[in-house]
Amino acid sequence: MNFHIMTLFPDMVKGGLSGSIIGRAESAGLISVEAVNIRDFAFNKHNKVDDYTYGGGAGMLMQAEPVYLCYEDIVKDIAARKSISADEAKPRVIYLTPQGKLFDQKMAAEFSEEEDLILLCGHYEGIDERVLDEIVTDHVSVGDFVLTGGEIPAMIVVDAVSRLVPGVLSNSDSPEYESFSDGLLEYPQYTRPEVWHDMPVPAVLISGDHAKVDRWRHEMSLERTKERRPDLYERYMDRTE
Amino acid sequence: MNFHIMTLFPDMVKGGLSGSIIGRAESAGLISVEAVNIRDFAFNKHNKVDDYTYGGGAGMLMQAEPVYLCYEDIVKDIAARKSISADEAKPRVIYLTPQGKLFDQKMAAEFSEEEDLILLCGHYEGIDERVLDEIVTDHVSVGDFVLTGGEIPAMIVVDAVSRLVPGVLSNSDSPEYESFSDGLLEYPQYTRPEVWHDMPVPAVLISGDHAKVDRWRHEMSLERTKERRPDLYERYMDRTE
Repeated sequence: MNFHIMTLFPDMVKGGLSGSIIGRAESAGLISVEAVNIRDFAFNKHNKVDDYTYGGGAGMLMQAEPVYLCYEDIVKDIAARKSISADEAKPRVIYLTPQGKLFDQKMAAEFSEEEDLILLCGHYEGIDERVLDEIVTDHVSVGDFVLTGGEIPAMIVVDAVSRLVPGVLSNSDSPEYESFSDGLLEYPQYTRPEVWHDMPVPAVLISGDHAKVDRWRHEMSLERTKERRPDLYERYMDRTE
Repeated sequence: MNFHIMTLFPDMVKGGLSGSIIGRAESAGLISVEAVNIRDFAFNKHNKVDDYTYGGGAGMLMQAEPVYLCYEDIVKDIAARKSISADEAKPRVIYLTPQGKLFDQKMAAEFSEEEDLILLCGHYEGIDERVLDEIVTDHVSVGDFVLTGGEIPAMIVVDAVSRLVPGVLSNSDSPEYESFSDGLLEYPQYTRPEVWHDMPVPAVLISGDHAKVDRWRHEMSLERTKERRPDLYERYMDRTE
């Protein structure tokens, strides 16, 4: 699985993805993460990639051409690697934007089936719509909040997708959280010591009675979901009625 | 505004937050981002901070004590800086977890009022619940997807909160996206050249008729929100009826 990240801040993306599991997966050749600097494709002597917005409004917009040239360069490399034409090589292009569909675990699973994935990070007020119309296949938002750019959302997508690539998670990494698989939040968990700051581990967890442990965990999941995510709780109750 | 990030991967957090606006805000002294390594507070000779889960289940859990000692150290520093007692210094502690309330722009605004904010990043299967009960004030999730750790979600919070700190955004950074302020997604935007790859900028945007521009933008916002975020569209229509 190869991620190609189009960004004005390649160091930021590479730095933020250097952590344990992703870094290890990259070293093992299971994934590759390439950060390509859009500014390298600026076509003027000042390396400027942004300009004012037609119709007025605060802020600068990234211009179409540097984004397009950067995209073409990535596609050319993919085509060469796979010995196919550039037209056949065209991969899915995800634009990280608050104006997108909400990213979720189902989308992560879908993306993990791809061999190559381009992630386009906007900055300033956004990107000229024409190049988005031309190259973007998926407009994706990671949540209802405003960020300074698309770099951290791109890291979110790379991280969530990578851990679904076969071989990336070892057993000790815990391949599947309970969360989102059955639609409930996960129950509380405890590890040694048995008593910490005068607080003992709940007795049921050291009872050895697996059926009782499962029941307790399910009740705790229900309670916590009801309190913290009433939206998920309602959906779960609708489904199980 | 001071962010204190408790993590097993401080380099990852610092690298991922080195980008333009946040990096500039830090240099200007408007915010500070400190990444504290929880492993420095391991209390055994192997620097181990995780152990098996009581009651069974795959994966390892972070132990309570290193997390607690790391927290105490940060609080002590805050107390010393402000010349108050550790008890008075206790800041809000945000635990990044899929088992949390969904982060949104309103929460970002609320957090931006704080002087100090601790962000706790889990890894492995999570953290012993007892230390969470003891120190955490807010369980926060950035979305319904599973990641390898809390580091990238912590970056999301730091980025979204920082840009609301007075002085962090300059005018050219476009202080307020339209998105989420009126509940609709932002309209498409265009910059020079006027014709790119045979595609002209929509004529209305160069008409000079501001009322017409505003109307067009509002219509495009409505259309796009309806298509990509039916949940937001419904809420907007309910409100404006």
